[in-house]
Amino acid sequence: ALRSWLEETGALDIADELARLDPEDRAIPFRLLAKDRALEVFELLDPIHQQELLESLREERVRELVESMEPDDRVRLLDEMPAKVANRLRAGLSSDERQLTAILLGYPPESAGRMMTPEYVNLRASMSVADALAKVRRSGEAAETIYLLPVTDDQRKLLGVISLRDLVLADSARRVGDLMRTEVHSVDVDADQEEVARLIQEADVLVVPVVDHEDRLVGVVTVDDAMEVFEREVTEDVSRAGGVEPLERPYLSVGPFHLARKRAVWLLFLGIAAALTVNVLTAFEATLEQISTLAVFIPLLIDTGGNSGAQASTVVIRAMAVDEIRFRDLPRVVSRELLVGVMLGAMLGALAFPLVTLFFGAEFGVIIASTLFVIVIWATFAGAALPMLAKRLGLDPAVLSAPIITTLVDATGLLIYLGIAITVLADQLTLAALSPFGL
Amino acid sequence: ALRSWLEETGALDIADELARLDPEDRAIPFRLLAKDRALEVFELLDPIHQQELLESLREERVRELVESMEPDDRVRLLDEMPAKVANRLRAGLSSDERQLTAILLGYPPESAGRMMTPEYVNLRASMSVADALAKVRRSGEAAETIYLLPVTDDQRKLLGVISLRDLVLADSARRVGDLMRTEVHSVDVDADQEEVARLIQEADVLVVPVVDHEDRLVGVVTVDDAMEVFEREVTEDVSRAGGVEPLERPYLSVGPFHLARKRAVWLLFLGIAAALTVNVLTAFEATLEQISTLAVFIPLLIDTGGNSGAQASTVVIRAMAVDEIRFRDLPRVVSRELLVGVMLGAMLGALAFPLVTLFFGAEFGVIIASTLFVIVIWATFAGAALPMLAKRLGLDPAVLSAPIITTLVDATGLLIYLGIAITVLADQLTLAALSPFGL
Ligand SMILES: [Mg+2]
Ligand SMILES: [Mg+2]
Ligand SMILES: [Mg+2]
Ligand SMILES: [Mg+2]
Ligand SMILES: [Mg+2]
Ligand SMILES: [Mg+2]
Ligand SMILES: [Mg+2]
Ligand SMILES: [Mg+2]
Ligand SMILES: [Mg+2]
Ligand SMILES: [Mg+2]
Ligand SMILES: [Mg+2]
Ligand SMILES: [Mg+2]
Ligand SMILES: [Mg+2]
Repeated sequence: ALRSWLEETGALDIADELARLDPEDRAIPFRLLAKDRALEVFELLDPIHQQELLESLREERVRELVESMEPDDRVRLLDEMPAKVANRLRAGLSSDERQLTAILLGYPPESAGRMMTPEYVNLRASMSVADALAKVRRSGEAAETIYLLPVTDDQRKLLGVISLRDLVLADSARRVGDLMRTEVHSVDVDADQEEVARLIQEADVLVVPVVDHEDRLVGVVTVDDAMEVFEREVTEDVSRAGGVEPLERPYLSVGPFHLARKRAVWLLFLGIAAALTVNVLTAFEATLEQISTLAVFIPLLIDTGGNSGAQASTVVIRAMAVDEIRFRDLPRVVSRELLVGVMLGAMLGALAFPLVTLFFGAEFGVIIASTLFVIVIWATFAGAALPMLAKRLGLDPAVLSAPIITTLVDATGLLIYLGIAITVLADQLTLAALSPFGL
Repeated sequence: ALRSWLEETGALDIADELARLDPEDRAIPFRLLAKDRALEVFELLDPIHQQELLESLREERVRELVESMEPDDRVRLLDEMPAKVANRLRAGLSSDERQLTAILLGYPPESAGRMMTPEYVNLRASMSVADALAKVRRSGEAAETIYLLPVTDDQRKLLGVISLRDLVLADSARRVGDLMRTEVHSVDVDADQEEVARLIQEADVLVVPVVDHEDRLVGVVTVDDAMEVFEREVTEDVSRAGGVEPLERPYLSVGPFHLARKRAVWLLFLGIAAALTVNVLTAFEATLEQISTLAVFIPLLIDTGGNSGAQASTVVIRAMAVDEIRFRDLPRVVSRELLVGVMLGAMLGALAFPLVTLFFGAEFGVIIASTLFVIVIWATFAGAALPMLAKRLGLDPAVLSAPIITTLVDATGLLIYLGIAITVLADQLTLAALSPFGL
């Protein structure tokens, strides 16, 4: 049954099902695959699952699989392995592949140099289209892509690019130098992987050449790897916005202890920050004791403040992530968000006033409505401005997202609330309740 | 200065700067561009910016630009326009382009049919490689991509695909039918755009053929459009997780009123849900009046509950979005998350107990520590289970993310807190304070 399922099923679906099995159960179906098909399935697996699978295969089979991988994928796999295993695997490579691997490993993690492939086909400007196609046929087999052909000089300096499409559609007597595009979207070998991926997305290109500091071609990055970078970067941003450190591995491949560890630090940090609210409220305890109804609105008010802050930071962080706004837009963003805060605060205040007045009297109506108005404006402002300032300071703006802003707005929001309450209810309070900080 | 800047600057950077100008200022630099370059820049703009730009160009220029667009991009542009303008533009197209546009507009929004291009080059299985390349040269100019060549029969039924790479590298006498790949990653014309994009990402392909219900080829989807779908879908998920309706337009292209409208509904809805906490606390008012210190811990406890719920839902929603977990994994996910909740709850409880005991006495130490323990477990469970159930019910799981779960956990968390407090402090409370619901 397993054998016939493997024969009928596409490589992608096999990879998908393998990924969902427990690690120790993956080797059995994998060993039943024909060699070509096994490689195809292996390449479709996530680096983590590749690594887990290799652990249960014979040494010789491991060597073959790793030898056949594309250099960039191999580097991502080696990155996941314990250094000792990775070194042994590198030593087992043919000298060609070992050299290619060493080149990529020489660049810093998350750089263009790490995600590129050094296997491309480059052309000379002096070649005719026919010569160029002949070279593509000669050396295309080993390249990861032949859809973008960089054109270089004797010193490997990048002069332009020509797509395979343009080459195939061109008159065979024409010269590459006349057809090539000289306005090239290339990236520096040290560029951040996210910047590379964004260029590929915005320019709608399939391949981007990577150059060194002397503008010499060192590799090319392909769109499939750009998509994977986006997926990881989005996971990172989404995780931080939810107050979790990114998992870096598929959810079902990590144990509960690891899951807990990725949340413990944030939860603890946010808990300590929230302890500020205990201080604020302790300072106001005399006030709360005399008018206990004040306590009843605390969750509503801080939740609403937290929600408005989270909304503003979500919108601003996403707009920065997709490059719609930059630091120089800060004044525009802040003035717009202040306006948004005023509109939302006025709406909530206007709704709360009659309802709270009905059940708790007009004084509470005034207190709750005006607190909502002020808190929403303040939270919206903080939610918009802080992530932009964080980015300016070189921090990941996602770190200043919803959970932190909520917690920050909580403590300040309570100060606003009880400040307004004391002012409105002054005639009902004793001196102690009027000066919460013992002034 | 403007003229020379436009000459020196790449199309992508020009598009970028145009997008950042106020709409009424975009036409001037755009009109200075040479025709080819203008089209290139125009194609790199977001549909919203394209639309805004067209509003300030001459009728004749608008007609030319829209005529030159790829059919799929044109459909996305028309989707952004008021129906009247869109109809006038469609009427102004040449009959060929009008027909292509009509085909795509016949499919539902967000479907494969809407995002595909009907301009592809298809081959016959009986062709030799040389014939196939000749056909590519003849009809490739008009196609959006020639990197994947679908192979069809007389009835346009999809038999297989061959990449331009394989065609170029193959011996010119071989037959397409022998070289083509029959295990094709094709999608149904009604498939959701997100599913199409995910297939392109997971299979690492540049192009996916689209077929109708009789398996006849109707178009192809390209990877650049898949990336754009991901960008929009991620924005949607991220927005909902932050309690905002997605903007659907670049941040700086929408006014503050529109920004506020996208947040008002959620803020209001969450505010109404948070009003539940007012009810819960009003029921316990006698208890809070007698022991006002209880109020002091409310923000800390509900924030911590909210944070753990947000963490669990963030991790689970992301794992579902990247297809790492499905509904059938519910028991595994829930049991793991319960364990995570127990670990995190125990950690926080163990830390809180000595600190609270030090400042507020052992009874409060017990109350706060055990409340944290229970709330964190409950919130983690709810945060993990609810998004999975939502997806099962056909809802967007992102709708049941952080803000909703936080609000839900707030009200129930307060019940847990005050329930525990009453039990521990029973001997210090009057009968009224012991039965909060007037029982
Ligand atoms: Mg190779
Ligand atoms: Mg990064
Ligand atoms: Mg794009
Ligand atoms: Mg690659
Ligand atoms: Mg890859
Ligand atoms: Mg990032
Ligand atoms: Mg909260
Ligand atoms: Mg066309
Ligand atoms: Mg959708
Ligand atoms: Mg991929
Ligand atoms: Mg397209
Ligand atoms: Mg496009
Ligand atoms: Mg979605």
